[in-house]
Amino acid sequence: MNQFGHNFRLAIWGESHGHQIGISLDGVPAGIPLSEEDFAEDLARRRSGAPGTTPRREPDVPQIVSGVYDGYTTGAPLTIEFANTNTHSQDYSTVMRHYRPSHADLVAYHKFAGFNDPRGGGHFSARLTVALVAAGVVAKKMLPASIRFATRLTEIGGCTDPERFNEVLHAAAADRDSVGGIVECRVQGVPLGLGQPFFDSAESMIAHLLFAVPAVKGVEFGSGFAGARLRGSENNDSFTDCDGTTATNNAGGINGGITNGNEIVVRAALKPTPSIGREQITYNLATNRVEPLEIHGRHDVCVALRGAVVVEAAVAIALANFIRQ
Amino acid sequence: MNQFGHNFRLAIWGESHGHQIGISLDGVPAGIPLSEEDFAEDLARRRSGAPGTTPRREPDVPQIVSGVYDGYTTGAPLTIEFANTNTHSQDYSTVMRHYRPSHADLVAYHKFAGFNDPRGGGHFSARLTVALVAAGVVAKKMLPASIRFATRLTEIGGCTDPERFNEVLHAAAADRDSVGGIVECRVQGVPLGLGQPFFDSAESMIAHLLFAVPAVKGVEFGSGFAGARLRGSENNDSFTDCDGTTATNNAGGINGGITNGNEIVVRAALKPTPSIGREQITYNLATNRVEPLEIHGRHDVCVALRGAVVVEAAVAIALANFIRQ
Amino acid sequence: MNQFGHNFRLAIWGESHGHQIGISLDGVPAGIPLSEEDFAEDLARRRSGAPGTTPRREPDVPQIVSGVYDGYTTGAPLTIEFANTNTHSQDYSTVMRHYRPSHADLVAYHKFAGFNDPRGGGHFSARLTVALVAAGVVAKKMLPASIRFATRLTEIGGCTDPERFNEVLHAAAADRDSVGGIVECRVQGVPLGLGQPFFDSAESMIAHLLFAVPAVKGVEFGSGFAGARLRGSENNDSFTDCDGTTATNNAGGINGGITNGNEIVVRAALKPTPSIGREQITYNLATNRVEPLEIHGRHDVCVALRGAVVVEAAVAIALANFIRQ
Amino acid sequence: MNQFGHNFRLAIWGESHGHQIGISLDGVPAGIPLSEEDFAEDLARRRSGAPGTTPRREPDVPQIVSGVYDGYTTGAPLTIEFANTNTHSQDYSTVMRHYRPSHADLVAYHKFAGFNDPRGGGHFSARLTVALVAAGVVAKKMLPASIRFATRLTEIGGCTDPERFNEVLHAAAADRDSVGGIVECRVQGVPLGLGQPFFDSAESMIAHLLFAVPAVKGVEFGSGFAGARLRGSENNDSFTDCDGTTATNNAGGINGGITNGNEIVVRAALKPTPSIGREQITYNLATNRVEPLEIHGRHDVCVALRGAVVVEAAVAIALANFIRQ
Repeated sequence: MNQFGHNFRLAIWGESHGHQIGISLDGVPAGIPLSEEDFAEDLARRRSGAPGTTPRREPDVPQIVSGVYDGYTTGAPLTIEFANTNTHSQDYSTVMRHYRPSHADLVAYHKFAGFNDPRGGGHFSARLTVALVAAGVVAKKMLPASIRFATRLTEIGGCTDPERFNEVLHAAAADRDSVGGIVECRVQGVPLGLGQPFFDSAESMIAHLLFAVPAVKGVEFGSGFAGARLRGSENNDSFTDCDGTTATNNAGGINGGITNGNEIVVRAALKPTPSIGREQITYNLATNRVEPLEIHGRHDVCVALRGAVVVEAAVAIALANFIRQ
Repeated sequence: MNQFGHNFRLAIWGESHGHQIGISLDGVPAGIPLSEEDFAEDLARRRSGAPGTTPRREPDVPQIVSGVYDGYTTGAPLTIEFANTNTHSQDYSTVMRHYRPSHADLVAYHKFAGFNDPRGGGHFSARLTVALVAAGVVAKKMLPASIRFATRLTEIGGCTDPERFNEVLHAAAADRDSVGGIVECRVQGVPLGLGQPFFDSAESMIAHLLFAVPAVKGVEFGSGFAGARLRGSENNDSFTDCDGTTATNNAGGINGGITNGNEIVVRAALKPTPSIGREQITYNLATNRVEPLEIHGRHDVCVALRGAVVVEAAVAIALANFIRQ
Repeated sequence: MNQFGHNFRLAIWGESHGHQIGISLDGVPAGIPLSEEDFAEDLARRRSGAPGTTPRREPDVPQIVSGVYDGYTTGAPLTIEFANTNTHSQDYSTVMRHYRPSHADLVAYHKFAGFNDPRGGGHFSARLTVALVAAGVVAKKMLPASIRFATRLTEIGGCTDPERFNEVLHAAAADRDSVGGIVECRVQGVPLGLGQPFFDSAESMIAHLLFAVPAVKGVEFGSGFAGARLRGSENNDSFTDCDGTTATNNAGGINGGITNGNEIVVRAALKPTPSIGREQITYNLATNRVEPLEIHGRHDVCVALRGAVVVEAAVAIALANFIRQ
Repeated sequence: MNQFGHNFRLAIWGESHGHQIGISLDGVPAGIPLSEEDFAEDLARRRSGAPGTTPRREPDVPQIVSGVYDGYTTGAPLTIEFANTNTHSQDYSTVMRHYRPSHADLVAYHKFAGFNDPRGGGHFSARLTVALVAAGVVAKKMLPASIRFATRLTEIGGCTDPERFNEVLHAAAADRDSVGGIVECRVQGVPLGLGQPFFDSAESMIAHLLFAVPAVKGVEFGSGFAGARLRGSENNDSFTDCDGTTATNNAGGINGGITNGNEIVVRAALKPTPSIGREQITYNLATNRVEPLEIHGRHDVCVALRGAVVVEAAVAIALANFIRQ
């Protein structure tokens, strides 16, 4: 449901064009210094404005409404809210029933018997990831100081050369189209032993959260799908000491669902933004016909650009949940 | 932990060389006809014996010890046990501290302070998947009759031609090596509406279970990683009617985390069996040195062969959990 | 933790003197008509102002910030907030470390290493029950129309005659003291079959929530403690028809943890308000001495007065959680 | 459902006359010495044989089937089973549809559409508490060595004088009747700080488990219901030092839902055994009439006799769950 976690628990709410997006974090230890400024860096990484991102710019000012006193977390639920200020609901009025391809509009309409808030995708909007990024900031503060994240785009639209990424983005924008991308998150300094057999493996919990992020359609660890094409003698990681250090890291830092102390390596495949300016043919409930649709809203050419910090937040949250155990 | 699910809940236990492997299923509706024979077909798909599978052959006779009365489920917890009868613990005595590459031996030793049962991988053994397959059989009986599973190996060791699979397996076996594989599970007849925003998307719950299966290191839905290399105009699935039917199915049957009524398509990447006969160099705690290791146990050349039905079981369990909601 | 429930889940947050008290409800079905006005009646029952209640008067205006669109619930998380407007934090400055008897100040200080928000009891304040009452309003709308609640005070300070309640309250107030009370909640029209063996009996879930309400120190169903003093022939309820109707109702409407279709009868014992105006002797951390304490804040003579609707809300929430299963 | 707990989780199964009763415990730390003999003492306290208990005598031999290796817990799920050997199912054949007053037969029949196992109460039988006692044994080993339990019957059939308990029991037995009782559990040496605001108060978790025990219809902490009849000045517990020691203990060791380091005092009211030898008038589905019923099975005159150790086990389990947090 809209709650996740065990000893570090999240409850998320909000709609794209509603009053606010919010998240309440339970299980945050008391005594962590925290202020609204601490969220600025990661929120900036998620913010639009760069080439390939939507022109909708929210100030994204986090408001801590519970769980912090005199600058420190109290151990009580830590709740963070983001007001929705820059909403153009009229953009969506015509597409409510002229179902946008690969969007959640149709399933939301059916699942909630037509009562879902359709404005800007409502509760299904990627706007909610602002709350996930905020939770990620808190999660990182809960992790040991040894832990370091390095997250980057390894591919955009099939192009693996970062120097050519802008070119790919501009070409897609010029065609009023979008492109997908692959985000790689590497985490150093993870202690050996995170993850729980049988069902709550480190991979299971990280993937659970990553697949909750809109647009993520694939997740792999270490050699992942490529490793499935290797032989054991090629894919195996030999241990070189009693602490679990391995000569290679095809396991992506996880053996038997438990972190082994090596770098965690996880990649998420983000599909191309489904909202594109090009005309598409799709079913219209109003006319009961398959008809051309033009989407006029403001959208990202590549959601993976802003998705990198969201992926990182998801990994941080999963690790924080394990650390608390 | 070792429990999973919400309205259909699993609790699993057992060790490779202990008394038994067991699973208790909570939330099974009353009135489903069920007998030990119902498990035979799927257990046979998991059983060893085919080329590329381990010579260890367990009879795998399921015993229903609670939750069934007069041939029907009662609504009380349904518990199924499998005795461990064919255990060669002496095979493992030397490797307990001479850590097998890419195995859980080392992390288990650290996480459980040396108290873990090391025989045959203990609780980390793929032997536990026999219980998952049994749970999958019950899960399928909980699903609507419209649902049909088609699960197959699409790749073995990088080879995509099923006619050449045996050749690939024999070559690896001849080299005392192993190969990985990719399992694709397709599910037809899934009702629109399964999955829960925000955190319990259909992808999240399926992937959570799949990544609990030993050897799974990647999961993708629909066009997955390949889709991240496409443009939106190529990857988008246009709706053709009010029921959610789409012209293409790059989404793998899931929009916004909710099933859209089209075929679910999910693929799992299984790494090559880490236990190989070839000599490997790895750390030995007994000598505190990196030394050659030869593994003499009985192992699969390709775990993906027997893993297909396990992947299918995991998908069935995740869907049954949603159906009960 | 600060989350409760299964298919109808609550996440609560806030501190007595913080920005706000809030609650987010997950699992509310789509299509329920809901507006801020719907909360007025039950919030009025909880509000202060009657004899024996605190002079602190909050306007208690609920703000629905997510989950409602065009007057109907959407199926997405339903979040309700109450701003804290009438806070006199200075009242508490001296008692922070001069621990009030039978209050949570001391345990909160220890458990959260001194980082807890001490103002007005912080997160431990009965102020949070305003959110529980709001959740109860939504829960009642989720229940079948057949269900009717009748909740009343059966005792105040040991007095069982409602005509003498005011007299008891005034006498205690005159002594700058407080009194406890017993709240009885009766629920008619409950369908047979709510409750889950083994651990989630109807009594278990109702009691779990009731004991989360500040001041509740006892819970009993039907004949309860008195029934433990009877013989089986006196306490047994004979069935009079196939629907489960019983001649007597000593079971309080619950057999084997499952509702049997008869009236649910549950009573909660609420201790006397621990904050009293009379001088008390208790430990002072500032002086490391046991010293006289006078509490000057504004407090209820009898929390059970305002607690009745909170008890009713807790019962409604527990039932709504079962109804969703 | 049939699973309970957070970091120490129980899954229970079995029917009175089925193959076995079992319980699987997740979250047991590795390295605790454990053997079947460790269960003997508490199982003996639950066993029948004393005056007032059923003549049905099960050997109650626990079998540890997973989670223990070389005499120590492994950190993997710890599963304990009890075979059902002494079952007289024919005793129950006639009462299946001639509903025993205050039994779960009727609700079970309705809730599970007639598919429930009716023999001996099936899954609703108090026989399942053997598994709870076993879990309690493990829970006690997880608790700090400082913790000491003292559990006793304070009342039988309204009689508070232990020297007259046998007299009360014999009188009831002579009348082919039964009596209820009150069990008091006191726990010394509990660390300050167990319990979680808001919903998982120490009282909430203990009561949740206690109300899962068949026959429990009331739970109170400290002064409980009697405290609700006192004034604040009488019921308040003054602190006498910085560690939370109080001069009195009307709170039963819990403030604000958190243990305060004083003795936990909890009482459970157990109703009289509903199965009595005396003729009772109740509905018979076979004849669709209200008719006399004589119950011929073997039953306890007072379930509270054997219930004391079950109550203690429930308290221990709740505390162990908190200790693990």
